[in-house]
Amino acid sequence: MIEIKPVAYVRNTRTAVEDDHWGAVQSEITLADHLQESSLAGIEEFSHIEVLFYFDQVEDEKIQYEARHPRNNPAYPKVGIFAQRGKNRPNKLGITVAKLVGRNGRSLTVTGLDAIDGTPVIDIKPVMKEFLPRSEVKQPAWSVDLMSAYWE
Amino acid sequence: MIEIKPVAYVRNTRTAVEDDHWGAVQSEITLADHLQESSLAGIEEFSHIEVLFYFDQVEDEKIQYEARHPRNNPAYPKVGIFAQRGKNRPNKLGITVAKLVGRNGRSLTVTGLDAIDGTPVIDIKPVMKEFLPRSEVKQPAWSVDLMSAYWE
Repeated sequence: MIEIKPVAYVRNTRTAVEDDHWGAVQSEITLADHLQESSLAGIEEFSHIEVLFYFDQVEDEKIQYEARHPRNNPAYPKVGIFAQRGKNRPNKLGITVAKLVGRNGRSLTVTGLDAIDGTPVIDIKPVMKEFLPRSEVKQPAWSVDLMSAYWE
Repeated sequence: MIEIKPVAYVRNTRTAVEDDHWGAVQSEITLADHLQESSLAGIEEFSHIEVLFYFDQVEDEKIQYEARHPRNNPAYPKVGIFAQRGKNRPNKLGITVAKLVGRNGRSLTVTGLDAIDGTPVIDIKPVMKEFLPRSEVKQPAWSVDLMSAYWE
């Protein structure tokens, strides 16, 4: 087993888990007490950050090990948990690229983070173009349909 | 503390940690025994996957809490660990988008994964365009310089 300690926490106005409409949510990410403010030095030079977080509200019994229809929508094919980005996954980890709006000491302000209030953050990385896909991205039609209202 | 269990392991020919030249490395990612093959069902429909892994070779004493020059290069500014993607970071977590070359049962073949042989994988997610940056990516000049030979 690997032991992980939260490095920050999310604060925003979204207290309930919702599937869609995350685009307008603004969040504060504030460092945990054991980390120094200097661990964020220079992050303002990046337009986007990658936020790695823990879906702490997911119950162990909900974790999906069998292939299933994403969002239980029978119009979508049955796919494995590693072929979708749903939260009920082994290790309960989420990764999202958020827009960095600003920094105030130990806190970052971001938009486009799909994590609810109180979510533990376990890593923050700057987005570099060199770490984006380096060839054309292809994905199945169901995933485009599923995402259609996600950021609206 | 959060407990994490590896879901897969990396196999490739790179046994030593190196800073650069990861582009040509081909890796196999094979599911851990407690996971079913169906957890990968449908992943072949995606061209790229996001691989979340654990830098298990990093010693705790090496973890960086103060701002420092990336790669100890004095030509680069001192930045905090959350403003760089180096491995000596709290929680020792890496995230990389790799190209999915193929699947054989419980194993995925990928290129462009910057993890050495034996690295534990703690999550696999499909890359969807909707989760890529949705506005222009800006980053400091030092990070472009640092990445210049990374994938070559």
